[in-house]
Amino acid sequence: MRSRPGAASPGEFELIARLCAKLPQSRRTILGPGDDCAIIARGDAPILATIDSMVEDVHFDLAWLTPEQLGARSLTVNLSDIAAMGGVATACVVNLAVRPGLTARFFDRLYAGLRRAARAAAVDVIGGNITRARQLAITIALLGDAPASPLRRDAARAGDEIFVTGTLGDAALGWRILARKLAASGTSRRHLISRYLAPPARLFAGQRLAKIRPAPAAIDVSDGLLQDLGHVLERSGVGAEIAPESVPVSKAYKQVMGSELSLALGGGEDYELLFCIRPGRSEKELARLLRVPVRRIGRIVRQRGLRLAGGVKPQLAGWDQLRG
Amino acid sequence: MRSRPGAASPGEFELIARLCAKLPQSRRTILGPGDDCAIIARGDAPILATIDSMVEDVHFDLAWLTPEQLGARSLTVNLSDIAAMGGVATACVVNLAVRPGLTARFFDRLYAGLRRAARAAAVDVIGGNITRARQLAITIALLGDAPASPLRRDAARAGDEIFVTGTLGDAALGWRILARKLAASGTSRRHLISRYLAPPARLFAGQRLAKIRPAPAAIDVSDGLLQDLGHVLERSGVGAEIAPESVPVSKAYKQVMGSELSLALGGGEDYELLFCIRPGRSEKELARLLRVPVRRIGRIVRQRGLRLAGGVKPQLAGWDQLRG
Repeated sequence: MRSRPGAASPGEFELIARLCAKLPQSRRTILGPGDDCAIIARGDAPILATIDSMVEDVHFDLAWLTPEQLGARSLTVNLSDIAAMGGVATACVVNLAVRPGLTARFFDRLYAGLRRAARAAAVDVIGGNITRARQLAITIALLGDAPASPLRRDAARAGDEIFVTGTLGDAALGWRILARKLAASGTSRRHLISRYLAPPARLFAGQRLAKIRPAPAAIDVSDGLLQDLGHVLERSGVGAEIAPESVPVSKAYKQVMGSELSLALGGGEDYELLFCIRPGRSEKELARLLRVPVRRIGRIVRQRGLRLAGGVKPQLAGWDQLRG
Repeated sequence: MRSRPGAASPGEFELIARLCAKLPQSRRTILGPGDDCAIIARGDAPILATIDSMVEDVHFDLAWLTPEQLGARSLTVNLSDIAAMGGVATACVVNLAVRPGLTARFFDRLYAGLRRAARAAAVDVIGGNITRARQLAITIALLGDAPASPLRRDAARAGDEIFVTGTLGDAALGWRILARKLAASGTSRRHLISRYLAPPARLFAGQRLAKIRPAPAAIDVSDGLLQDLGHVLERSGVGAEIAPESVPVSKAYKQVMGSELSLALGGGEDYELLFCIRPGRSEKELARLLRVPVRRIGRIVRQRGLRLAGGVKPQLAGWDQLRG
């Protein structure tokens, strides 16, 4: 069992690295694979591009969510990549893999959700393709306008303070509740499930962050805090110290998990932003600027690797225990 | 059995039409769904965007082609959409759905083919995503620079002459040979299979066509001549008269099919260009301009519908007989 639906295995990460090597790129490619979006030079203003896919029985189960929620979520996971670069999402093309047994009404509802999410984010749905397949899959390529200084994963510097938006771990709990691996009831149940089914895309927060100089490093928390922070550290060639107890969790998370932080540290699908910024800004100041709660969770250090305060080693932090 | 791998059924065409209705689009969308590419306004020069997918057991069988050929072909079908707008392909993002049972070596070879095709077309592979799935699928979203006057499907006018590049029907025969629905040997067999496995993308021809004024209407012949011409007629609000015997076929096609034109008229996957242009240009002149053989096959008329010379009705032209 994976820590989350669709989570990549170590073998898949290795495959990604292999395939990203030696790709043909001209001078127009400002940033290739390895960040939340690619950046392409185009006239005065560079373009952001990203692609993501939601596959039935890998990323979702139709028993868990409405077609509208599926349509909306398929776009949101892409919007989150634009948010993590500080960009403005503009237009998308959609590839729909259609399996037998789904009605025209199902697709009407799927597209209704997609349209609503696109309208809310001012994204044009400009084209698409439909193919037959044995599994339903929605693959969206999303374009955006890059800010003058995009939020890159490779921009973290020793001394930076590390912040995250919102709360972490909720989506991982919501998924476990839907998959009947975990019981919860009432408001907590509804909150956690909704955090999984309808995650945010922190577009406004990302755009505001991109106005700060020097531009912060950023990533969206899709694979889990420690793993995503790991991507930033690796690409920036630095290390980090994190205080686990400072990682923000919701009331619902506490109610279900108590003081156990495994899923706040290791659960994915929250689509909050993690960013690394020169020191001197308070949580309050940043929350006002980004219009979302913000929590300081640690700092970037010169020495490579990720250390958790209290001497807890990341790989022993216990986020495996709920993997099923 | 479909006329070609991956061919859309009438129900799928209806679904596409439903889903394309009411899509959110701002003024930045110059051309939405329904053409070979979408066109988005961006600074001085609009951008072309298209997405296409190759799904195992729907569009290909791994017994038929090498991983390199599969990688190259996945890009080519997208390049052909850029060609049909007269554009210059620039950059792509790739979504790879990976099923169990395929080795890292397989993906190395797939990407080697993709890289080679990208380099040949001066396309940057700028990013991607990998997901697990039960079927192997390669979905590519390709961007391009639009010409000043793109080749649109809705630009055909009564009096235009209709031309096609290259020869038609070869790919449909190649697919049937691979699927053991048809026997052929020697040079013919090799030619026809290669036309299916490694189709052209008429980028140079498209770019040259886009310099002609008024801009010709164009489409790539992926679904079959009659069906693709039908798309042009429908979007342009006109009709056409075609002389079936003028449709260009290869020596190999003649050797296998004799004078039977069903697959030249109805077979897909050739990825040649069909274009409609003001009268007065000879085949020879156009062939020199486009650097590819060109054949005049008919003309656009005011009265809607498609008529085949000799009173043959399109739906009786016999292109169903080989469907198996």
